[in-house]
Amino acid sequence: MMASWIEGANEAGCHFPVQNLPFGVFSTGDSAPRCGVAIGEFILDLAVLEQAGLLALAGGTNTFAQPTLNSFMGLGPDAWNSVRARLTDLLSVSGDPTFNDDPSARERCLIAQREATLHLPFQVSEYTDFYAGRQHAENFGTMFRGPEKALPPNWLHIPIGYNGRASTVVVSGTDIRRPLGQVRPKGADVPEFGPCRRLDIELEMGAVVGLPSPMGEPVSVAEADHMIFGYVLLNDWSARDIQAWEYQPLGPFQSKAFATSISPWVVTKAALEPFRTSTPERDKDLPPYLREPGPTNYDIELEVLMQPNGAEHAETIARTNFRHMYYSSAQQLAHHSVCGCKMNTGDLLGSGTISGPEKSQYGSLLELTWGGRDPLTLESGATRAFIEDGDTLILTGWAQGEDYRIGFGECVGTVTPAPSFPAA
Amino acid sequence: MMASWIEGANEAGCHFPVQNLPFGVFSTGDSAPRCGVAIGEFILDLAVLEQAGLLALAGGTNTFAQPTLNSFMGLGPDAWNSVRARLTDLLSVSGDPTFNDDPSARERCLIAQREATLHLPFQVSEYTDFYAGRQHAENFGTMFRGPEKALPPNWLHIPIGYNGRASTVVVSGTDIRRPLGQVRPKGADVPEFGPCRRLDIELEMGAVVGLPSPMGEPVSVAEADHMIFGYVLLNDWSARDIQAWEYQPLGPFQSKAFATSISPWVVTKAALEPFRTSTPERDKDLPPYLREPGPTNYDIELEVLMQPNGAEHAETIARTNFRHMYYSSAQQLAHHSVCGCKMNTGDLLGSGTISGPEKSQYGSLLELTWGGRDPLTLESGATRAFIEDGDTLILTGWAQGEDYRIGFGECVGTVTPAPSFPAA
Repeated sequence: MMASWIEGANEAGCHFPVQNLPFGVFSTGDSAPRCGVAIGEFILDLAVLEQAGLLALAGGTNTFAQPTLNSFMGLGPDAWNSVRARLTDLLSVSGDPTFNDDPSARERCLIAQREATLHLPFQVSEYTDFYAGRQHAENFGTMFRGPEKALPPNWLHIPIGYNGRASTVVVSGTDIRRPLGQVRPKGADVPEFGPCRRLDIELEMGAVVGLPSPMGEPVSVAEADHMIFGYVLLNDWSARDIQAWEYQPLGPFQSKAFATSISPWVVTKAALEPFRTSTPERDKDLPPYLREPGPTNYDIELEVLMQPNGAEHAETIARTNFRHMYYSSAQQLAHHSVCGCKMNTGDLLGSGTISGPEKSQYGSLLELTWGGRDPLTLESGATRAFIEDGDTLILTGWAQGEDYRIGFGECVGTVTPAPSFPAA
Repeated sequence: MMASWIEGANEAGCHFPVQNLPFGVFSTGDSAPRCGVAIGEFILDLAVLEQAGLLALAGGTNTFAQPTLNSFMGLGPDAWNSVRARLTDLLSVSGDPTFNDDPSARERCLIAQREATLHLPFQVSEYTDFYAGRQHAENFGTMFRGPEKALPPNWLHIPIGYNGRASTVVVSGTDIRRPLGQVRPKGADVPEFGPCRRLDIELEMGAVVGLPSPMGEPVSVAEADHMIFGYVLLNDWSARDIQAWEYQPLGPFQSKAFATSISPWVVTKAALEPFRTSTPERDKDLPPYLREPGPTNYDIELEVLMQPNGAEHAETIARTNFRHMYYSSAQQLAHHSVCGCKMNTGDLLGSGTISGPEKSQYGSLLELTWGGRDPLTLESGATRAFIEDGDTLILTGWAQGEDYRIGFGECVGTVTPAPSFPAA
């Protein structure tokens, strides 16, 4: 096993061993946000490392002293790989001892995670949300349209997606305000206006585009895979009652636009290489532009936890795996570009809700409680059909190697009450 | 009538009299793109004017020497109004003679439009497209879902909209590459992949957000109106065959993401003040958050022209008016924010297709040819159900005053052939 000289990074269950090295943006005290890498319980300050000349990077010396990863992501795979190789060397027991041997460099470059504030790791150029989990699509379709129309006729041919709202993508830890909107009560002719009463989560992974593509130029699945910088956990908060009333004919809009949370550390594609897996067997042949050139999906274990308002700890309410997705992020990105849509550094692609075949593997409360009819009973005794004010929802996940984990950390959000609007 | 000392600005039919003063971004030769205002057949170079101290603007001296209007738009209504007042004064016959009296300043600041390249006037933060024209919604619904389901049940209660793709919003004059995609031929079980065969336009207006709003905070219609900087013509290019196959259940995606064209000059809300009009009478009461506090729509005459491949000139194929819209842009923006969605400087809101009640007033070919069944016969003898390669489509529009026009110029695009993909 490759080990790090950083305390704690080699412990069983640690999300951030030297094999991971996920990128994020952090600050301490009043200092400016800058780029860093998670290692054990520390953050390695890449801005200081770069300035000290310990990271040679084509493209200048100011790549990491920035409040987003976009500059670094835009440099492309050669730069990503060379920085990863250099960091691995500096942080491994058997690697370059320069850094380990210099207590003052260590002092300046290593910050305890508990003393840092984590920020949105990249500027989200645009956010697209897909619908690529088959079990979820069937569950959802059954509840919204009936079992005979559960899977839309296009679903097995196209990675169905829609454009989401980038301005409300927030980093884990940001409170989520319950949205207002129009809903139509069952049997009513006329909608009502007020706070959402069926507030939900969607467990997703987000793929982060590093390399852009030009307008008018479709990219292949292999090229799309090459463009992806890494992955995050993503919670696609959803207002089910608002969604049911608004989504026909043009899709979800305000029911999704109020918030999307992502985990603070972008786990690189390189770190996930050992966990590649093929998408499931096809029911229908895909057109050539969507075929996998090799495995483009990943084996990533995922959990949803809930800490209901007032409870002392969070408990797991669902467990599933990313490998269930019918379309991979690379296939989604290829489809996204096929019309000539320009893709940009910082584009975020939500995978769609990740639900496994068993009920305990469903990635949303709507599915777990089957439309609210079968509420969850939690250890604290509380029951939940949907999310109440003060509840905290947590996503976590990791790829499990033989003797290490490539962890994603957590994606956390606590729901706060809706605003009073319009003012009386 | 208020007149300008600039040649041509006072001529009947001129789109850019001194009453208009729309903002855009231009360059000449190899010079850097910068902000300007259209006046007659000239562009007033605001970067030079600002540097010469002729435009006092709180917030620094570098607002206009930039390749987008975003900095200026973000300053808000007080700055917009003071710059407009100052420009009116400098350009009017009866105003401040400083500029008119200084031939060297005139020489440096006034550029003939025919010698300039016009750029995308602002960085599009995000693009949202609405569906607020009732005649269009009824026409479209009849063709896609049948007459009895033409208007969705939510339509009279909500300004229906969806998130579009900002990365492919281009300035007038940019060629539009025919998109590739999946389509399902009539009666077929399995889709085919190839170039779109039912390529269309949608005649829309775009509202440009100047002032941002915070996440979690809905804005009223009055506040939304206050946030809007101005309006452009917008062509929401649409691939009808791709759209029909993909749009259920999550809305249009690749059928719209390949291109959206806008006119180069942002006509300010201030210039349009005399043309305010109320939205049409309500069929259903709106909830308070959507009610107009006063007239928030505009009387703007609109035309669609087509120049088929090989023809010597363009001819008008539709004439309509913006006042037909059931929901105004301010109502759309208020709805957009009601869930707590953060709105940003540079957000672009497409109005939805503007179709009047008569067939000659329909704003898309799908409607004008009723799904392609009744092709147009053009003066050149060519017939068109949908757009062919080499065809040029032109939108134009103006608000007609007693003795002047507030013109939008043109929004032009020529269609080029689809790429070969995947390579054999």
